[in-house]
Amino acid sequence: MTPVITFLSDFGLTDSYTGICRAVIAGIAPDATIVDLVHTVPALDVRRGATMLADCVPVAPASVHLAVIDPDPGAGPGVVVEAGGSLLVGPDNGLLLPAADVLGGATAAYQLRDLRWHRSPVSRVFRGRDVFGPVAAHLANGVPPTAVGPAVPVDDLARLPGLDADVGHRRIAAPIRNVDCYGNVQLTVRQADLQRAGLDGGRPVRVGTPRETVELPRVASFSDLAAGELGIVEDSFGWLAIVAGGADAADRLDLRTVDAVRLGDD
Amino acid sequence: MTPVITFLSDFGLTDSYTGICRAVIAGIAPDATIVDLVHTVPALDVRRGATMLADCVPVAPASVHLAVIDPDPGAGPGVVVEAGGSLLVGPDNGLLLPAADVLGGATAAYQLRDLRWHRSPVSRVFRGRDVFGPVAAHLANGVPPTAVGPAVPVDDLARLPGLDADVGHRRIAAPIRNVDCYGNVQLTVRQADLQRAGLDGGRPVRVGTPRETVELPRVASFSDLAAGELGIVEDSFGWLAIVAGGADAADRLDLRTVDAVRLGDD
Amino acid sequence: MTPVITFLSDFGLTDSYTGICRAVIAGIAPDATIVDLVHTVPALDVRRGATMLADCVPVAPASVHLAVIDPDPGAGPGVVVEAGGSLLVGPDNGLLLPAADVLGGATAAYQLRDLRWHRSPVSRVFRGRDVFGPVAAHLANGVPPTAVGPAVPVDDLARLPGLDADVGHRRIAAPIRNVDCYGNVQLTVRQADLQRAGLDGGRPVRVGTPRETVELPRVASFSDLAAGELGIVEDSFGWLAIVAGGADAADRLDLRTVDAVRLGDD
Repeated sequence: MTPVITFLSDFGLTDSYTGICRAVIAGIAPDATIVDLVHTVPALDVRRGATMLADCVPVAPASVHLAVIDPDPGAGPGVVVEAGGSLLVGPDNGLLLPAADVLGGATAAYQLRDLRWHRSPVSRVFRGRDVFGPVAAHLANGVPPTAVGPAVPVDDLARLPGLDADVGHRRIAAPIRNVDCYGNVQLTVRQADLQRAGLDGGRPVRVGTPRETVELPRVASFSDLAAGELGIVEDSFGWLAIVAGGADAADRLDLRTVDAVRLGDD
Repeated sequence: MTPVITFLSDFGLTDSYTGICRAVIAGIAPDATIVDLVHTVPALDVRRGATMLADCVPVAPASVHLAVIDPDPGAGPGVVVEAGGSLLVGPDNGLLLPAADVLGGATAAYQLRDLRWHRSPVSRVFRGRDVFGPVAAHLANGVPPTAVGPAVPVDDLARLPGLDADVGHRRIAAPIRNVDCYGNVQLTVRQADLQRAGLDGGRPVRVGTPRETVELPRVASFSDLAAGELGIVEDSFGWLAIVAGGADAADRLDLRTVDAVRLGDD
Repeated sequence: MTPVITFLSDFGLTDSYTGICRAVIAGIAPDATIVDLVHTVPALDVRRGATMLADCVPVAPASVHLAVIDPDPGAGPGVVVEAGGSLLVGPDNGLLLPAADVLGGATAAYQLRDLRWHRSPVSRVFRGRDVFGPVAAHLANGVPPTAVGPAVPVDDLARLPGLDADVGHRRIAAPIRNVDCYGNVQLTVRQADLQRAGLDGGRPVRVGTPRETVELPRVASFSDLAAGELGIVEDSFGWLAIVAGGADAADRLDLRTVDAVRLGDD
């Protein structure tokens, strides 16, 4: 069966970095299929990349997941992490673990220390080309993860601090998880959080932004909203999102990914 | 032979939606080749997507053409449309029919109602991941279109109102079809329209924009224009286009895709 | 073994031009893998494209390298250039030769005159779709380069004038080669140039921008810089680059790709 390598990075699409990594992989693993997930994660934003990777891996086949957002390439060796039949390859900076979590949790990890699977010489500033890409390609070729370097306890892997909603009685303080290209505002709030706060029941929810307070209906889909009408849906990843009928909700409410909102009273 | 799935959407390249659909397809149809056509169709712009898809399909091999611009995911089931040996998959909102037309016309259509070929559960807001992508992958695997759901008469499929030139005597009123990344201004006018209006003969054509009137020479290629000189070519899709020698014609004339121009007298 | 076609262009990602070329190739060479290098080279910028292609080809497998930046499609036939086991396909305008140089030098070239390998009719304005893409696909299928048209001496191929540093005694005047998406400022200066100018030895280097003069430390990696601190690294392509710790150096120094800097005294 055709091996699959999914690929996520902050290399962007205006430089040749993404293409260079694809070319390196094609040279080592010509029969692998590269599935580009996204390459325009904001530069050096490990948290956003971790979020996006975790959104993607549950629907992908068991495969090699290559992820490169590497603001500190001198910090230590990269890793391969085993989770749910897949292998996650990238820097040990917190990027990989949320994806491992949604795949059932990391069951083993290995440091990328065996130079047989790296390009030579290794650049100090572009490990995607010289380390992560080549290792991913060799893994797709069937090299076992135990061959890439020494095992490291999964509890020793770097983990980002959580970005969670603060759920109280009839109020939730929620960082925004992402504003997408349609202007949908994805919150770090799940349906269960709303129930926990006593704010559920299908009734409209009061939403406080940094600039205003609005009362928004709960709807099942964009199709339930009039043109331009704001509402709250459960999005396709299970998060609550503020959306608008055929319009840009973030623009309407002047919200950005770095903002937070308050749901409920006060 | 390797099955091909072409893929067009408005999912953009800054979120993971496009990558998620690719990953879903790779899981179901690992031997298919995904040919990305374009994913930056302006958000929810079904008309622009229909135009771009119709430009692409004539040069593609007979294949599965997946197209997703889905502003109203609750409106009804998606469809697969047979045309010229290819299968077009997407929402029934007018996106697919112009492409079917250039492939020789739709000969059959089926509603995507059989849940065997969908992901489960189906999100109410991301049918690309849960319905259109999976169905396209199963079709590439050889599932016959008759298996995806009940037949629907092709005359019952949604069709967008035309965006045509208004051709009169020695005058044409023409909406702009697209302004491309070079600043070429593609008009909804063909050579035959010019002849019909009595404006042909290789002589310069008077062009009225919302802001000015200019007289532009007919040329065969960019190479026939001096640096910065404006002219009219027949473009590679058979449409007339206002272009400039090594320069951005839309910028020079302050034209955008939503504008229209007048050709000829008055 | 799966044939590889790498693909670089200025077609952008907002129009369907890139996708159309991919579809044409998939029709002719369904078993080839297309490796997208970059498609957002600034419109008509042959020099920038040549630079990026030369950065990519050394790490790619021996393959067909398709490159299309074609401001003057009427200027003459395109070419295929043999170099280091690879075949470079594109216009004869200087785009291909820097890449051929890094592959060991062009050893033969052929004009794309045999119409058997072109689409018919050939548009005067989109040779990527009608000539370069189809020829690349046929070469990937095993058509020998001698079959595409008559040989042309490699010394007769168009070559861009150099964009080199001016190295003097204790001073270097250096055009900027590229500012990347992280804000790293890549100079047309190699470590050897610094030694030749007598500016080496690991000591800080004085850098004069159009707006200010700063003294920057030499470091091995981003990891050796404090947050926001500016420094000079040897980048992963062997060029010196002005970078900042976790920050955008070009923004800090107000530098763009069209600028030049002075290193050393004066």
